[in-house]
Amino acid sequence: MSPSDPDTLHEHISKQYDHELFDIRSRVLSLGGLVEDQIHSAVKALLEGDTDLAERVIVDDYKVNSLEVSIDEECTQILALRQPTARDLRLVVAVIKTITDLERIGDEAKRIARHAIDLAAHFPKRNQLTELGELARQARALIRDALDSFARMDVDTALQVAERDKQVDSVYESIMRQQLTYMMEDPRLIPVSLGIMWSARSLERIGDRACNICEYVIYYAMGKNIRHISIDQVQQDLMRR
Amino acid sequence: MSPSDPDTLHEHISKQYDHELFDIRSRVLSLGGLVEDQIHSAVKALLEGDTDLAERVIVDDYKVNSLEVSIDEECTQILALRQPTARDLRLVVAVIKTITDLERIGDEAKRIARHAIDLAAHFPKRNQLTELGELARQARALIRDALDSFARMDVDTALQVAERDKQVDSVYESIMRQQLTYMMEDPRLIPVSLGIMWSARSLERIGDRACNICEYVIYYAMGKNIRHISIDQVQQDLMRR
Repeated sequence: MSPSDPDTLHEHISKQYDHELFDIRSRVLSLGGLVEDQIHSAVKALLEGDTDLAERVIVDDYKVNSLEVSIDEECTQILALRQPTARDLRLVVAVIKTITDLERIGDEAKRIARHAIDLAAHFPKRNQLTELGELARQARALIRDALDSFARMDVDTALQVAERDKQVDSVYESIMRQQLTYMMEDPRLIPVSLGIMWSARSLERIGDRACNICEYVIYYAMGKNIRHISIDQVQQDLMRR
Repeated sequence: MSPSDPDTLHEHISKQYDHELFDIRSRVLSLGGLVEDQIHSAVKALLEGDTDLAERVIVDDYKVNSLEVSIDEECTQILALRQPTARDLRLVVAVIKTITDLERIGDEAKRIARHAIDLAAHFPKRNQLTELGELARQARALIRDALDSFARMDVDTALQVAERDKQVDSVYESIMRQQLTYMMEDPRLIPVSLGIMWSARSLERIGDRACNICEYVIYYAMGKNIRHISIDQVQQDLMRR
């Protein structure tokens, strides 16, 4: 993406307006990068029992929050002063929704960091965490690709993310079954298993939010709200175009 | 709220525009009522082991989704055609955000309904569910009051909801501790306790989303984004006005 992106540039006489639209898009990507780092650190803290790192994730959440509020205000300014229509309007609406999801992903990272602190006191066995590491890797990849589809407003990548979220759900289900077995076999493991289950749930939700972002990309590109419509349906619509 | 509400009527020459703004507000309240019913039925299904009712909640989620999409489209239309500014713009933005939260509350109701189906097969003891019933009662009251503050755009009610969410959190924490104790004492109870924990988590999240709606009401009324600001700070700001 660059300020000379054909989506935005040739439509407007005001170079300032182009710059504003470019700016909110690139600030969404900054927010996305920040949130990705927060997930990465939270999961690292959990897997390595690093409570200092977990504390830092909790403290740094304010950065996510203040950037989100600032982009939100910029969007409202653009709506009020530029009165965008068509594609530009869809961009601003997509940005408003995307940053809400990114901020809530930041909240999930904070929750994982809190579980990291609780679990560090219980020394979970290494093999209890293997699958969680894999789930985290997949969830982060989804966020990265969702942001990539947002950066390029690329519908194909967006649709792929939605497909891949099914794999995340299946790893999540497997972790839940595994931890249930551990708990039933040895009740002393219950607190640790619960911490792992809650963290897994947070990661699964992060995957869902990556899908939300992809839905906004498709809404922007196609002018169509695809929430609650199956991916197959969207792909058929795409082929018909 | 009525179409002759002073907030909206005397500002616009176009009666049609007034009607549109009135319409999205009243449709948000319809969506809110629908979502409240879904929570009520999901929790009733859980407490009474009524799987038919739980199935109905799951099926009826499409009504929540389609109403949300329809209001969302109406908002985008108003932004494009009416190019609202100031208070009207804040209303439309508040509506867009509120309906997202309402739709996600509907998702939580669906999750509770799924747990109701799982738990019905396990016959939880009645006393395991007492506190969950209380949590559900409090969470639903928060939603009702959040919607009431939205209907009247009343900052005082909105601030009270945010305060009362702390009680919801405390009942939630108590349920989590209680279920942990049950599980440790009798591992056969683990599946039931987990179902209760997940349902409690959904209800706690519903409380959080009621608070989000209240934040949008305050944003509309005060022109100020209070997310991530303490209630004390907002109250001080209010007194200074």
